[in-house]
Amino acid sequence: MRVLVPWAQLEEQMGGWPDGLQVEVYDGTGAPPEDVSDVELYVLPYGRSVGRDLLPRMPALRAVQSLSAGVEKVLPLIGPNVTLCNGRGLHDASAAEHGLGLILAAQRELPRWVRDQDAGRWAPEHTRSLADSRVVLVGYGSIGAALEQRLLACEAEVVRVASKADPGRAVHGVDELPSLLPTADIVVLTLPETPGTIGLVGAETLALLPDDALVVNIGRGRTLDTEALLAELTTGRLRAALDVVDPEPLPSDHPLWTSGAIVTPHVGGGAATFYPRAERLVAEQLRRFADGRPLLNVVSGPELPQEAAPSS
Amino acid sequence: MRVLVPWAQLEEQMGGWPDGLQVEVYDGTGAPPEDVSDVELYVLPYGRSVGRDLLPRMPALRAVQSLSAGVEKVLPLIGPNVTLCNGRGLHDASAAEHGLGLILAAQRELPRWVRDQDAGRWAPEHTRSLADSRVVLVGYGSIGAALEQRLLACEAEVVRVASKADPGRAVHGVDELPSLLPTADIVVLTLPETPGTIGLVGAETLALLPDDALVVNIGRGRTLDTEALLAELTTGRLRAALDVVDPEPLPSDHPLWTSGAIVTPHVGGGAATFYPRAERLVAEQLRRFADGRPLLNVVSGPELPQEAAPSS
Repeated sequence: MRVLVPWAQLEEQMGGWPDGLQVEVYDGTGAPPEDVSDVELYVLPYGRSVGRDLLPRMPALRAVQSLSAGVEKVLPLIGPNVTLCNGRGLHDASAAEHGLGLILAAQRELPRWVRDQDAGRWAPEHTRSLADSRVVLVGYGSIGAALEQRLLACEAEVVRVASKADPGRAVHGVDELPSLLPTADIVVLTLPETPGTIGLVGAETLALLPDDALVVNIGRGRTLDTEALLAELTTGRLRAALDVVDPEPLPSDHPLWTSGAIVTPHVGGGAATFYPRAERLVAEQLRRFADGRPLLNVVSGPELPQEAAPSS
Repeated sequence: MRVLVPWAQLEEQMGGWPDGLQVEVYDGTGAPPEDVSDVELYVLPYGRSVGRDLLPRMPALRAVQSLSAGVEKVLPLIGPNVTLCNGRGLHDASAAEHGLGLILAAQRELPRWVRDQDAGRWAPEHTRSLADSRVVLVGYGSIGAALEQRLLACEAEVVRVASKADPGRAVHGVDELPSLLPTADIVVLTLPETPGTIGLVGAETLALLPDDALVVNIGRGRTLDTEALLAELTTGRLRAALDVVDPEPLPSDHPLWTSGAIVTPHVGGGAATFYPRAERLVAEQLRRFADGRPLLNVVSGPELPQEAAPSS
């Protein structure tokens, strides 16, 4: 069974490739393999777009492993008989710590100090804090839970919101946002992109926030209406810190760059801590694929999820 | 008994000043009171230097409340019969979250994204992480403990170091640094300035760190040898993120500004979360002073500490 994986070092880490697999390495740089017609399992290179163009040339494909949590770009490129596995959990620590970094940067005005540093200017001022703040987390998957753990350690209060309320876990439903947002200091979006979440946060929702509230997006750019946010940033009523935006990449003349928002170029998931976690998952998937056992993290296709991914 | 405090709003919060106190407000802005010869308790304005010049004109002084944790600048200005109380604990949340913000900014390269944003440039790159890092905390007082709590929630490993080892609490002594630093990803200084800590971290200590390690200082600038650090930054062997430096304020032409270190202008303690905590402490001190009861947070002078400060 022919398999494409993005990391050569996996062979040594696994003590050799599993029996029955003919494994080739394609990491998304350089020329891809010429003939991919008999590839049965494709572990996509990590990096948001690279390598997806090979999918239509893989008629023998049985399974695709994406290393992203969001698979909205891969789904349209594969047939209904291909099992799609995502990277759920791999990015939790990385994305949550970047989200926390964005929040701290906004509250403690790190961009101001960077620009002051570039000017050789020592001009201390008191700032906002994260401690004692009320944070509404919209989206309560594994990244939301990882961020919550960090926020609580920072002495912030956390309010959990998901698409469906779950009172047993103190999770509110999105329909309760009108009563939750008016007392929020910070609102954080960790939503996937689905037909139900696109544009979920627009002018009406933003208007519920109190003056000076901070809007953070570390999920998917299209869940937040860019024009509506820009209107609130332009008047200075709200603040924002965004790792994901709509559109991506953000064109160099886009007004978000100069809106006062902090903008980072979708780097939440891509940090050192991702790799050991991702390599553990791919190694386990290769063993399962070789043995004919059910894959982990299945999000669509013929196989149903059997177990949770191994924790770190 | 005449008392100077920095906040007028305290009167309403306390339901009126305590009986027996003649309270005046001096917040460090505008002209100070002309005659301060009968002031018995002086709560210094918060802001690192302002208001200290009044101390030599207060012969009736019995007690001084500083709102800083470090009192090295106040001590030489008061006599041995004056009780000095510090702001221990008031800054824990504020300083710890700024320290965490500096670490995340360095690991996740926030300054790069700020400068890219100013250029309208969307250029994602993978970065280091905080998760899975080994952090050596040098100084394990209340700020160190508050930072530790945040680092553990971020999935970092923490090694505790203080002036004296305390094996029961897993605290190493500074004499163990030669065995601890070679495996550190990050070292954080939260040391007060005392004769024993000035220059504690110099060329020899920095040389123990592995390549690419991050040096963070949120304690006092003089505990870290600026020239020795600059030498390591110039070669690119080490990285740094500093909220305190030597000298302060940093002159506009100082080489630290352009050394690659992140420099913030001693803003760790000065955030919104400080004020409610500081107001609670001062209210309690006024009640105690009026009643003749022992003050909290005594660090020198005739009274001995009787109790810990009220927690937040």
